[in-house]
Amino acid sequence: MTETTSTTASEDGGDWLSATVTRNPGEHATVIDSAKAAENPETAETVAKIKALRQSIDNVDTAIVSLLAERFKYTSQVGVLKARAGFAPADYKREDYQIERLHRIAVAAGLDPDIAEMYREFVVTEAKKRHQRIAEAGGDPGVLDVFA
Amino acid sequence: MTETTSTTASEDGGDWLSATVTRNPGEHATVIDSAKAAENPETAETVAKIKALRQSIDNVDTAIVSLLAERFKYTSQVGVLKARAGFAPADYKREDYQIERLHRIAVAAGLDPDIAEMYREFVVTEAKKRHQRIAEAGGDPGVLDVFA
Repeated sequence: MTETTSTTASEDGGDWLSATVTRNPGEHATVIDSAKAAENPETAETVAKIKALRQSIDNVDTAIVSLLAERFKYTSQVGVLKARAGFAPADYKREDYQIERLHRIAVAAGLDPDIAEMYREFVVTEAKKRHQRIAEAGGDPGVLDVFA
Repeated sequence: MTETTSTTASEDGGDWLSATVTRNPGEHATVIDSAKAAENPETAETVAKIKALRQSIDNVDTAIVSLLAERFKYTSQVGVLKARAGFAPADYKREDYQIERLHRIAVAAGLDPDIAEMYREFVVTEAKKRHQRIAEAGGDPGVLDVFA
């Protein structure tokens, strides 16, 4: 069972704070920070290592979010072309090709291919939803800029 | 309502073919290929544009899957450190930080922040599941290499 709780307020504020996070009520959590590091020298070393790894993780996330921005700009253009030509949002032959391709790339990169498939499912599902909205707006991609 | 159908077989084979794709039975689909392009010259031009955009999308996916591979190598190391120190897989303070940070980066990059949040939810949920498996294996990261 999961419950949904609000996130804490940020300093830069904004109405996006209505965003919610799903958390398991029975889940254990540890805050890894300087207070945790003060417990003993061995803990301090572990906390320092985790902090360094988290910086690398943040760098990877910056790169991925930037690439996702480019990906959705491209799929938005595809959505406009499809809508104007009367093509449907979905193309299963293309999806099968993507499934095989990403599986292969994931294995070569040392990534569990299940994760690559979850990634593909996520982006393709979102792209198709957005293609549908463009089609319903008569081929207008501006319909997607509601967040700007 | 959705139903789950098997994917088509690939030439390079393998047991990953048990992977399934969720598809809406009422969903319309269009195969965009050379047969579609042969319909008329205007359609041929649209198909050529879509093919070019799809190549860029594939390039972005290659980069993202490679980065996801690095991300999960980093989080696997964090999982080992947490398990050995007796820290829980979850850290909500870290998650709140990530939510704010990725929201900000998404807006700056022109990406709908809802997509950045879906991305974060996906990778953090998977990382925590994997941290749990490492903890249950007594801090052994090799437990995650079952796909190799």
